[in-house]
Amino acid sequence: MDEISRTEIGSLGEFGLIEHLTKNNETVQAGTILSVGDDAAVIDQFGRQCVVSTDLLLEGVHFDLMYTPLMHLGYKAVVVNLSDIYAMMATPTHITVSVGISNKFSVEAMDEFYEGVYAACERYNVDLIGGDTTTSKKGFVISVTAIGEVAPDKYVTRAGAGEGDLICVSGDLGSAYLGLQLLEREKKIFLEHPGVQPDLQQQKYLARRILKPEPRADIVEWLRENNIMPTAMIDVSDGLSSELLHICTKSDVGCVLYEDKIPIHDDARAMAMEFNLGSAACALSGGEDYELLFTIKQEDYEKMARNNDISIIGYVTKKEEGVYMITKGGAKHKLIAQGWNAFE
Amino acid sequence: MDEISRTEIGSLGEFGLIEHLTKNNETVQAGTILSVGDDAAVIDQFGRQCVVSTDLLLEGVHFDLMYTPLMHLGYKAVVVNLSDIYAMMATPTHITVSVGISNKFSVEAMDEFYEGVYAACERYNVDLIGGDTTTSKKGFVISVTAIGEVAPDKYVTRAGAGEGDLICVSGDLGSAYLGLQLLEREKKIFLEHPGVQPDLQQQKYLARRILKPEPRADIVEWLRENNIMPTAMIDVSDGLSSELLHICTKSDVGCVLYEDKIPIHDDARAMAMEFNLGSAACALSGGEDYELLFTIKQEDYEKMARNNDISIIGYVTKKEEGVYMITKGGAKHKLIAQGWNAFE
Repeated sequence: MDEISRTEIGSLGEFGLIEHLTKNNETVQAGTILSVGDDAAVIDQFGRQCVVSTDLLLEGVHFDLMYTPLMHLGYKAVVVNLSDIYAMMATPTHITVSVGISNKFSVEAMDEFYEGVYAACERYNVDLIGGDTTTSKKGFVISVTAIGEVAPDKYVTRAGAGEGDLICVSGDLGSAYLGLQLLEREKKIFLEHPGVQPDLQQQKYLARRILKPEPRADIVEWLRENNIMPTAMIDVSDGLSSELLHICTKSDVGCVLYEDKIPIHDDARAMAMEFNLGSAACALSGGEDYELLFTIKQEDYEKMARNNDISIIGYVTKKEEGVYMITKGGAKHKLIAQGWNAFE
Repeated sequence: MDEISRTEIGSLGEFGLIEHLTKNNETVQAGTILSVGDDAAVIDQFGRQCVVSTDLLLEGVHFDLMYTPLMHLGYKAVVVNLSDIYAMMATPTHITVSVGISNKFSVEAMDEFYEGVYAACERYNVDLIGGDTTTSKKGFVISVTAIGEVAPDKYVTRAGAGEGDLICVSGDLGSAYLGLQLLEREKKIFLEHPGVQPDLQQQKYLARRILKPEPRADIVEWLRENNIMPTAMIDVSDGLSSELLHICTKSDVGCVLYEDKIPIHDDARAMAMEFNLGSAACALSGGEDYELLFTIKQEDYEKMARNNDISIIGYVTKKEEGVYMITKGGAKHKLIAQGWNAFE
């Protein structure tokens, strides 16, 4: 390491670091259609297309084993990768799962984790085809790579949004973040008063959203069935504002988002109040919802309006018009990425 | 975790654990040709075949940053995966690289690491197409997935060795292990006497074998050019005896290995003497050589004999005859896997 010139990674942030490290990345394989910089890469396999995505999950950073059942963790580790494949409008087919485990884990604990992995594979019709298993000095390490397929050039990137397109999002946002706040609060109470058992029965929805998310395979299927080809798509892992900015940057456009159109679940709204947080702020900056955020052409509006599980939350503008949110009170705020920065 | 029934992972070992966790793994995708249990998986992509392999490398387990230059580490993280693809007689085309890094890393340090990654990509004509970048509470975490291609059904597994086949290995064995011993010794000396700078100039070969291994793309190419289709193949990552046992188990055969035929480099022989180790033992149990171990039909003997970089070290027998090594003194020893167990 060069002691004279030292740039802190935190100063670039996760996306800045990725951009820095890959800015000179030249691809030489004729089959490389889409490289670093989207939810997944696309490679041409003899005229058909294969989609690849990978995630690294570390104990203490991405999950806390104190309130994360291993079965749920195994399930989630798989589905967050499948979510990236669906966000390309592709269908996941295969995964590899690598784990680094410390001595504190028993074979029975690993069985639980893999029960979750297999449950996700079964539900989403995906085969586990490989992986690596090793010891870890400290902490549980999980690396999953998902492979999917898509008909030639039928994948959707972050880069195709055009002026006038409608911005859509599936399901509801902010629930996963509030579920996490809830679990963190219960953990704190438990650590201070070990006798008090947390009662999460009243908050099943929020707990499920953070512990056992589901990728929106159903939305991708519905879009296909209804012949709607989104112009851009991304899954919401880091919060709505961060994802929307990704689409705007990659598509070279601006947008207007309406705060009152952001779909928020009643349980999330109530919990936000309990925590004295704005529920829209939780949706904008929370992350881990694994919903699909996408843009469609205006001509698809009628079709889209028939799906109650998809909300239209704004529209795409010219780049020069910037990226804004209109608040409930009618004020216009510039959107900034306050999503989760893994390096802060 | 079930406190009543607790099985220590160490009691199964890495391969036992993998077998345990995947014994009920059912594949549903028609395209899954070869799943867990070989150097790589094979999936059918619309009639052509795609090969996938993945490795997880953890600081303090797989590498020591005290004597591993980051550039070499980036290079090695890629090539150990490429080695798995070549061990299927396939050609690597794409990789994903995920890293978990702690605050102690600077952007400049990551640049060094990626310089190694890109150097490996360039040398082996492979595209970096994705990855994940995150913070790590402790230790540097690297996960690489390699994807390759192979003409339909032209891949070679560990399972095809037949009675009478010749056992071949490329290059030389044990050097990486002795290189590692050397670096560990120098580290210890340095920690005790920080003023003494290690002089590795005399041991460039051994240091290179552990720090910057090369996968045997050249051997795969030579085999193809000479129309030799190995009956079974594996890369030597865990030591010759462990790899040979994998082939015998998967192929349901026995074998005879000749100690005096095991290729050992002069530098390795000398260093083994210095450490008071048997050089054959280093080859048998050392690992990390990333040479190719394979079996061929006897009819290919003449062709094989023309390649000075390939040694014929034994032959395949019936399963009932067991797995043996004939020592230099003529004694017959049962081979047992003393390769590296990540859980010990």
